[in-house]
Amino acid sequence: MRASRRGSVDPFIVMDVLEAARAAEAGGRHIIHMEIGQPSTPAPLAARRALADAMEADALGYTVALGVPALRARIARLYRDWYGVDLDPARVVVTSGSSGAFLLAFTALFDASEKVAMGEPGYPSYRQILKALSLQPVGIPTRLEDRYQPRAEDLPDDVAGLIVASPANPSGTMLSKPALERLIAAAHSRGIAFVSDEIYHGLQYEGRAVSALEVSDDVYVVNSFSKYFSMTGWRVGWMVVPQDHIRLVERLAQNMFICPPHASQVAALAALDCIDELEANRAAYAKNRRLMLEGLPKVGFTRIAPPDGAFYIYADVSDLTRDSRVLAAEILEGAGVAVTPGLDFDPVRGAHTLRFSYAGATADIREGLDRLERFMARRG
Amino acid sequence: MRASRRGSVDPFIVMDVLEAARAAEAGGRHIIHMEIGQPSTPAPLAARRALADAMEADALGYTVALGVPALRARIARLYRDWYGVDLDPARVVVTSGSSGAFLLAFTALFDASEKVAMGEPGYPSYRQILKALSLQPVGIPTRLEDRYQPRAEDLPDDVAGLIVASPANPSGTMLSKPALERLIAAAHSRGIAFVSDEIYHGLQYEGRAVSALEVSDDVYVVNSFSKYFSMTGWRVGWMVVPQDHIRLVERLAQNMFICPPHASQVAALAALDCIDELEANRAAYAKNRRLMLEGLPKVGFTRIAPPDGAFYIYADVSDLTRDSRVLAAEILEGAGVAVTPGLDFDPVRGAHTLRFSYAGATADIREGLDRLERFMARRG
Repeated sequence: MRASRRGSVDPFIVMDVLEAARAAEAGGRHIIHMEIGQPSTPAPLAARRALADAMEADALGYTVALGVPALRARIARLYRDWYGVDLDPARVVVTSGSSGAFLLAFTALFDASEKVAMGEPGYPSYRQILKALSLQPVGIPTRLEDRYQPRAEDLPDDVAGLIVASPANPSGTMLSKPALERLIAAAHSRGIAFVSDEIYHGLQYEGRAVSALEVSDDVYVVNSFSKYFSMTGWRVGWMVVPQDHIRLVERLAQNMFICPPHASQVAALAALDCIDELEANRAAYAKNRRLMLEGLPKVGFTRIAPPDGAFYIYADVSDLTRDSRVLAAEILEGAGVAVTPGLDFDPVRGAHTLRFSYAGATADIREGLDRLERFMARRG
Repeated sequence: MRASRRGSVDPFIVMDVLEAARAAEAGGRHIIHMEIGQPSTPAPLAARRALADAMEADALGYTVALGVPALRARIARLYRDWYGVDLDPARVVVTSGSSGAFLLAFTALFDASEKVAMGEPGYPSYRQILKALSLQPVGIPTRLEDRYQPRAEDLPDDVAGLIVASPANPSGTMLSKPALERLIAAAHSRGIAFVSDEIYHGLQYEGRAVSALEVSDDVYVVNSFSKYFSMTGWRVGWMVVPQDHIRLVERLAQNMFICPPHASQVAALAALDCIDELEANRAAYAKNRRLMLEGLPKVGFTRIAPPDGAFYIYADVSDLTRDSRVLAAEILEGAGVAVTPGLDFDPVRGAHTLRFSYAGATADIREGLDRLERFMARRG
């Protein structure tokens, strides 16, 4: 059958790792998963209880397209609690995960063939979603000394939008408030739409993640219940849009999604009040992060980005390999540890980088580091 | 902030009805809802129980992009049960509702600025999703004597795709197997992608809905758990794609959605075995349909499409009004019954049509018909 050109998006390199790990496990090997980008914890207990109750009481039919009003109001309150920002709940759009938010944001903001910039390394799906929507992704190469974040002066001339992420995937690095201010000012001065991916907010270990909403109301902010709130599979996130874009996004959401999953919205509303449980998860990540920051350099992964937040460590391994795919395969085979080669995040320079996730259980992180140590010692 | 041209999709006319109905209810009036396009029943009991159990046992993280393998296999079995078609589970793509299926299908099949044809009247979001993806919707006007379905000879010359729906929304009419064969043959002979919307399959009252998969493997078939399986708010559906499109759609799904909601997939798998409960729902619709078919003509709505399936009746009201919006507003005000003006489904001729939904409870259908009778008698 006929196929579109825009549909031919790039495969994920990490899928080869996942398949190799699966095959190794099917063959009886025990694999430590440091390739996974999601919490191993379930949704908070009270969130699951709220849904169990709602399933008895309510048909859980369609909600309005922008999401359950109580959830939108509660998310707005989060901006007061986290950032001291007073946010009109009308600007909150509940979405089918941050994936749904990007589809809405990009169709609301950009027309076919326009260019949209993003820092490299970065979340691979920005690039692929843009392509699927007939947009042109433009990578901005970033440097370790800039915390792998784009600088205002690197913004290309002819772009219609800029996507930034802080804490970032794969690097875990954050943008300072002045850096964010410079980027937003540069975008605004040139009529460039600014999209701030804040899905790792809440998962920070030193300092505080700054929201683009602390700097300007004229931005799109994307967030999610997947990471801090430990609800990846529930596909529920949100977006904050400028006042003059609410109706536009509402009409798109009505047609493109009808509504976000109702059950997930019920669980998400309750999850917002489960701070004790979520902070316990975060304490576990903080512990894992300390173990990784001690362990990885000792083992030989010395050139790592400052991991301010999220649950990743991004390592420059150019002293160890010319092809991170080969190194990742060796680590899987030799150490029984699955890690992600950098090529998904940076199609050019990712041949020299690896991403380690510490989202797993602390015992697995310890075991993974031990295995890496033995493997690297043998590798010499 | 800057906005795209493609994001300016049309508003739903029915939203004005919904808002007026809500305002009337807030003012203390009792309104019968014949505008609603969803079951009032919840997900089947065993589906809710399966999810309650899964929430205790599983973290419900991301699934693979194409959906839980057991669910894909079980959906494939449905094609044997319903149509006698032997279907490879690998061709089944679980989606975030039929909405997600359309986003995947259209990006996989069509490039920006291509034209895609559909019968009018039809589901309004086809048109708006196509626009949001920089595609050009081309309406094919259909006639009551053709059951409001497009004919092969009406297929425009320069289109890249054709969307058909059977049973259709808003008309409830079905395509016969010969009519479907003629349409698919016409599309194939001209290299036009054929997309068959089958989301009302299961909800038929005389005869049997024919799947495009009974005619050809070289089609996209879209279906959903929303209607027959009574799971609108769960946002879970599926698509069957040609063998040579599986990888293409998988890559798009990985990037655009990551996965369909895990909790909804768990519930959907169990719902497939709840035939007794679902058939009881269908018996209620069948009863409602009989009441409507008796009641509406008596009251003065005589020119109605043959309602083979779904839960809608589409009435030509050109003898009663020149503006279906005005008539719908009068019916809401005068009878306390909310109905949908046809303009959402047919931007041209919908000024002369109304859609009545009989998805509600039977007692409400009776009450609605009584109110319509009194109103129409007064109106004269």
